Amino acid sequence: MVLHRGPIIKVLSAVTVVVGTAMLLPMLVSLYYGERSEAMAFLFCSGPMIALGYFAGKYTVVPANSMLRTRDGFFIVGTSWLAMSLLGAIPFVLSGAIPHLIDAYFETASGFTTTGASILTDIEGLPRGMLFWRSFTHWLGGMGILVLTVALLPMLGIGGQKIMRAETTGPTMDKISFTVNDTAKILYKIYAGMTLLQILLLMFGGLDLYDASVHTFGTVGTGGFSPYAASIGAYNSFYVDMVISFFMIAAGVNFTLYHSLLTGKIRQFFRDYELKCYLMIIGASTLFITGMLLWKGFYSDPVEGFRYALFQVASIMTTTGFATADFDLWPASCKMILLLLMVVGACASSTGGGIKVIRTALIFKLIKRGAYRRLHPNAVVPMRAGERNMGPEVMSGVAGFTLLYIFTSVLSILLISLENVDLITAVSSVIACISNIGPGFEMVGPTLNYAFYSGASKLLLSLLMIAGRLELFTIILLFTPVFWNRNK
Amino acid sequence: MVLHRGPIIKVLSAVTVVVGTAMLLPMLVSLYYGERSEAMAFLFCSGPMIALGYFAGKYTVVPANSMLRTRDGFFIVGTSWLAMSLLGAIPFVLSGAIPHLIDAYFETASGFTTTGASILTDIEGLPRGMLFWRSFTHWLGGMGILVLTVALLPMLGIGGQKIMRAETTGPTMDKISFTVNDTAKILYKIYAGMTLLQILLLMFGGLDLYDASVHTFGTVGTGGFSPYAASIGAYNSFYVDMVISFFMIAAGVNFTLYHSLLTGKIRQFFRDYELKCYLMIIGASTLFITGMLLWKGFYSDPVEGFRYALFQVASIMTTTGFATADFDLWPASCKMILLLLMVVGACASSTGGGIKVIRTALIFKLIKRGAYRRLHPNAVVPMRAGERNMGPEVMSGVAGFTLLYIFTSVLSILLISLENVDLITAVSSVIACISNIGPGFEMVGPTLNYAFYSGASKLLLSLLMIAGRLELFTIILLFTPVFWNRNK
Repeated sequence: MVLHRGPIIKVLSAVTVVVGTAMLLPMLVSLYYGERSEAMAFLFCSGPMIALGYFAGKYTVVPANSMLRTRDGFFIVGTSWLAMSLLGAIPFVLSGAIPHLIDAYFETASGFTTTGASILTDIEGLPRGMLFWRSFTHWLGGMGILVLTVALLPMLGIGGQKIMRAETTGPTMDKISFTVNDTAKILYKIYAGMTLLQILLLMFGGLDLYDASVHTFGTVGTGGFSPYAASIGAYNSFYVDMVISFFMIAAGVNFTLYHSLLTGKIRQFFRDYELKCYLMIIGASTLFITGMLLWKGFYSDPVEGFRYALFQVASIMTTTGFATADFDLWPASCKMILLLLMVVGACASSTGGGIKVIRTALIFKLIKRGAYRRLHPNAVVPMRAGERNMGPEVMSGVAGFTLLYIFTSVLSILLISLENVDLITAVSSVIACISNIGPGFEMVGPTLNYAFYSGASKLLLSLLMIAGRLELFTIILLFTPVFWNRNK
Repeated sequence: MVLHRGPIIKVLSAVTVVVGTAMLLPMLVSLYYGERSEAMAFLFCSGPMIALGYFAGKYTVVPANSMLRTRDGFFIVGTSWLAMSLLGAIPFVLSGAIPHLIDAYFETASGFTTTGASILTDIEGLPRGMLFWRSFTHWLGGMGILVLTVALLPMLGIGGQKIMRAETTGPTMDKISFTVNDTAKILYKIYAGMTLLQILLLMFGGLDLYDASVHTFGTVGTGGFSPYAASIGAYNSFYVDMVISFFMIAAGVNFTLYHSLLTGKIRQFFRDYELKCYLMIIGASTLFITGMLLWKGFYSDPVEGFRYALFQVASIMTTTGFATADFDLWPASCKMILLLLMVVGACASSTGGGIKVIRTALIFKLIKRGAYRRLHPNAVVPMRAGERNMGPEVMSGVAGFTLLYIFTSVLSILLISLENVDLITAVSSVIACISNIGPGFEMVGPTLNYAFYSGASKLLLSLLMIAGRLELFTIILLFTPVFWNRNK
């Protein structure tokens, strides 16, 4: 097929400028902490990226009435994410913090996709500027870096909707008609507000600005990188655990609901079907795990049990991946619940990954209808989610996505199990990456890391993270003949 | 709801007579081997069952124009299978071969559903008559005991079609209009012919009539019980391995295709879409596993590698569960392939379990169409399997079934993991039972058994086997309010 080169290059250039500019922040952090060679590494990347992006964008001619097609949107978003992870990895390699490119690519893809899986064996040994950049990628990737680009550079209005649709998550349920730039701006204002609030609350709890910032990036982006090997467990503070639990849960909510809330449509917020399911799942899982932990003697104080259970449930379901306890040691039934939550994930249009709560809920309805129709083969049963009707198109999309998620996972588990790892490590590595969580079980448990994998497996897992972040089709389509077929 | 009692009691009585009569065969075996108390146990069950069934059936009044509704069909088939497993378990308990009722229920359900999972720790210690009955249940359950009842007792013609539909496997793709008794008879003739042929071929290979018979029951019913702890590995014969591999694969084929073959419609047989997929999956998996086994040094002779790989692939994919090697020791990638095959299962309308090849193939098509429609949102893409069009009803049924299979498995894994077992044991126990395979991995590997599970877990797994055999809805519906709601 013939891609529309003009607008594609224009958007890619803009993304390069945005990422290059973003690197100036960690550069300042490096300078503040006196890490000169790290600051230079950031500058060496940032400068050329801004210049190259600016001039490439400036001298690219976009025909007056050119429009992005669906296909171009997929191409832009897919390639942007693949390229971004490479560009973002260069400072790690240049500074020697992560000497191998594949490792750095894995770490950066893990950052941008808000996965939080790490290949670092000695996190605390890294310079502070590098650790800041690592966490800052979570913040950039959380709400979507192309959404950010669209918000910042309104001249990209051409087909911005197609870009946003390929980058935001959740099933497409109705034809959206909005002013793209405005929506992107509103989303980022809410996101920034949430970020500021959490930084302040964490500083109130005794953290310094650096610690509060990096952990906030990991929370609101539902990423999970921490500059400490013990993750949030390093603080051992009830207050910090609760603040982060709250903000993780908040970041897993559909951000357009906050817009409803801010514009006074409070009923719409509390009536949302997905939000109700989401909170119920968190509540039920927390209660179950608290009960099991107390029963099996992991904690004797119910408040302690609740604290650790809530934190881990929130961290896993929102696909953040922070840890306050080594949950790999918990009873099998608790681990099974966590594994399920990994697959379900957060709400649509949140910063979290996974299949999404709304899709899971619709699948239950599909199964229920299937059972009903066994008894009443000729009955017409409309599908509803809360007060909305779901057409057969939506349902077939949801079923197709879920089955593709399962199929991609299974195929990847198969490839990963070619390495000498046990099945649980293989399964949880793949799910932790495709659902953008980070830690899994056994050899990739919360106290361990992905360093032992071969280069090929690291690349596969990086690709899975990006595919998972973009809800599979965007990346997988790039590898299909139908995408490149001129005549179709 | 009001069930139609007359016809239901009539059918249940007939099933009781059939099972009671079937017990006379193991009684004769017991007598032949001089196991008198075992023969008495069979007679004590068989006599009352035949008498009770006969008189209950005789004195039940069925109104002249009474018809079975879909719901009655589900009820009959569901309760028959639950009751049958209980009736069939009594001789084990009476004779003391399996003293505990729950254990005997598990073993009998495992037999009738052609699962082949066992709680026996010392198989070879059991009397020969009991082991014969254990294997004979595979043969009875393989093609469907209600189908057999319908074939034997034509007076049950009332709604026999509804019964057959609830007991045969695979998606309902078109309105079948056939004479039920004839179809049932044809299926059983093919089944019996296959059984005789395999017994003869095995005897030709040096097995005595007893060994040849019990292993044939386990093969054509895709069951997997063997009177030896080492399963088919006990013979260590290339010839026996090949004969059983062939018949396992043959038993996993849609039996209505054999009918086409026998009536001269040879092209229809070789053009069948599901058959092609089935054979391709077996071929590809066998090649992959052979390669891995040779590469990792499990065997040095390619023929040996092929022999063990083919046998295990055939055994697992057809959901039989025989073993010639301890495949739990094989490389993780081979185990992963086997786990996948467990889920896929055999062809529709075969004696095997699992999701079925045709459903798996359709799901791939659904995913592919989903990807295509991402690029072309308004395209109308008809679904085809080979030369047949699949309507949206069929597809939504297939997607619903598959997701229900996954959901039921996940829920059961959660319940099983409340016991102190590792995750792989829990996962493979559930899949081995719901797909009617038998052995799994780790603690339920091919050299081990299910004896260590608690009574509750054994009951759950028994229920899973029956639910899996009847393709979930038949059993699960019985536990839903909608089934019992009068007004719906």
